[in-house]
Amino acid sequence: MSDGFGLANLPYGIFSTPGGRPRTGVAFGDHVLDLAAVTGDEVHATGSLNAFMARGPQAWARLREEITAGLADPKEEHLHLRGEVTMHRPIEVGDYVDFYSSRHHAENVGQIFRPGQPALTPNWTHLPIGYHGRSGTVQVSGTPVRRPHGQQKGGTFGPSRRLDIEAEVGFVVGVPSRLGEPVPVGAFAEHVFGVCLVNDWSARDIQAWEYVPLGPFLGKSFLTSVSPWVVPLAALEAARVAPPERDVPVLPYLDDSAEPWALDLTLEVWLNGERVSSPPFAPMYWTAAQQLAHMTINGASLRTGDLFASGTVSGPERNQRGSLIEMSWNGADPIALADGGTRAFLEDGDVVTITASAPGPGGERIGFGEVTGRVEPAT
Amino acid sequence: MSDGFGLANLPYGIFSTPGGRPRTGVAFGDHVLDLAAVTGDEVHATGSLNAFMARGPQAWARLREEITAGLADPKEEHLHLRGEVTMHRPIEVGDYVDFYSSRHHAENVGQIFRPGQPALTPNWTHLPIGYHGRSGTVQVSGTPVRRPHGQQKGGTFGPSRRLDIEAEVGFVVGVPSRLGEPVPVGAFAEHVFGVCLVNDWSARDIQAWEYVPLGPFLGKSFLTSVSPWVVPLAALEAARVAPPERDVPVLPYLDDSAEPWALDLTLEVWLNGERVSSPPFAPMYWTAAQQLAHMTINGASLRTGDLFASGTVSGPERNQRGSLIEMSWNGADPIALADGGTRAFLEDGDVVTITASAPGPGGERIGFGEVTGRVEPAT
Repeated sequence: MSDGFGLANLPYGIFSTPGGRPRTGVAFGDHVLDLAAVTGDEVHATGSLNAFMARGPQAWARLREEITAGLADPKEEHLHLRGEVTMHRPIEVGDYVDFYSSRHHAENVGQIFRPGQPALTPNWTHLPIGYHGRSGTVQVSGTPVRRPHGQQKGGTFGPSRRLDIEAEVGFVVGVPSRLGEPVPVGAFAEHVFGVCLVNDWSARDIQAWEYVPLGPFLGKSFLTSVSPWVVPLAALEAARVAPPERDVPVLPYLDDSAEPWALDLTLEVWLNGERVSSPPFAPMYWTAAQQLAHMTINGASLRTGDLFASGTVSGPERNQRGSLIEMSWNGADPIALADGGTRAFLEDGDVVTITASAPGPGGERIGFGEVTGRVEPAT
Repeated sequence: MSDGFGLANLPYGIFSTPGGRPRTGVAFGDHVLDLAAVTGDEVHATGSLNAFMARGPQAWARLREEITAGLADPKEEHLHLRGEVTMHRPIEVGDYVDFYSSRHHAENVGQIFRPGQPALTPNWTHLPIGYHGRSGTVQVSGTPVRRPHGQQKGGTFGPSRRLDIEAEVGFVVGVPSRLGEPVPVGAFAEHVFGVCLVNDWSARDIQAWEYVPLGPFLGKSFLTSVSPWVVPLAALEAARVAPPERDVPVLPYLDDSAEPWALDLTLEVWLNGERVSSPPFAPMYWTAAQQLAHMTINGASLRTGDLFASGTVSGPERNQRGSLIEMSWNGADPIALADGGTRAFLEDGDVVTITASAPGPGGERIGFGEVTGRVEPAT
């Protein structure tokens, strides 16, 4: 259970065995429990978690109890070795929203993209800034990262030379909401099913040229990778911590003091097998509960499968940053690698893997598996 | 046929009759032809156009021929009066992308939002600027427009006082594309099924506070309305015109000179029954074929049901502008209405309807029906 897939975790994913259809499984140690086979419930044979997620928190809690009880004496034919199954994208993504809620990240990127101006825009401490990304290119961990072509400064064209990562934490909506009815900050756990890891691959040269005035578009939309395992909120109770002090009093709809959802995850970013960063998630300025409340305060509805991500997770130290543009300060100060090489941005063949863990009950760790991808040359 | 729903048009939509399930119909004159009943093809009984759109241009052309032939002698039980059926959202929306391709609109809004700076950002003449919107809140014409709450300048909070419209033309993707494979500008008609009208409702006060640096979010995501009828590309051959001269030579991937797709539509914007604007679509700087090529040049894939909209359509004259923020110059110069009133932005109870028509073969007009919505007070 060294990777944090013990009884306190029980994350959900979609797996297949050779010749078999994708179905829902629960990870336990080195194994996957075949929920479609164990339960006989068709909801677990649909090839995505969506139909189960739509059932809501009581159904989630009931199944979690049943799984925990059943794992005391599982039947061998319901278990598969995790190393021998193929993992698929766990959800059909509705809308994908990416936030920008790490203060260190926003300050770093602000200084890099808008030198001479204040690092944070005036709205940053008042609301969780976010934007919609391309849900159609959210893919499961392991999907090759084809280096994108695109327009760059001055209308030049070519393969991106500033291909980057963004280490993020993603939140998956299970229970939808109605158009015109905001979701209160305290209703977070009534709608959100669980948590995964996200790598929001970014082409900085394309992004820098296109993003004023309507935001990032092609610099991000070529691929967003998610981890195959979704950790249920129920596994994260021991990871809940107080959010950081806010500079400015938050408006009532963002007041999370009664039910805070800061989470003490530690991410790790690995480049070709070497750990290059360990971003801490607990100090994120805006929590996922606040993000959800903000995202719906205008009456926008939620759908099952909506995915919203934290934004790049960066801590105060250089080895706590969640993107290469920050680690190398826009390429001016490349990071040194153990093999003697350096990196400003990603090179063809580079493999980036993001992992995370969180405290669980009784000293056990909760693992999130990994989201990984290998950079393939531009075509 | 005065509304342009003659034999040269034959737009597709999803309709239902009392007690019946939503199914595919084709509009002809005052009638809807029930395609599910006529053809017996299950694809037309799915409640959205997606499955049929995914079949591709040859299937689209074949069915159009069959419908045209069959309408010479239709069976009465397959026809319903258009005024007596309920229309539904015609597509399951994949990703929704909104462009910004009217030069007059971009110049107007640039001057209003960024006074003292150049009206157009340096990238504007090099690429069709766009961003992802919220596909989960794309709804059919007639959906009530609930005035949204939200944060405004300085972190104040309340109902939007600057509720606005954006009159746009939408393009619906039928045939998907693969991740990593850009769609060439010349392949537009191999992927795009048809055209609808879009009203991208906008809360200007929310938008102005939130949109720097990552673009519009809650100022737009509360509702986007689409017309129920999708006009097939095949109906628009006579509307194709040469695009305007471009200031800057376009990059090869945006070169549409061999197969231009500028379209000679005229939109009309009606406020409480009075026509307040007639935006011309033909002079749009970037065409939908260029938008599609740009949107995929980084390898982003298309899904059946993806919707991309032109951006607000504005001509050079005040009565050709596609939004109230332009018509009233951000409220400084409200428009005068025939009933003696004035409007800077929308008031509760206002009904906005957008219509359009285009030249068809032999002097016939091609109609687009309408996209309409009534403003309801904030809750």
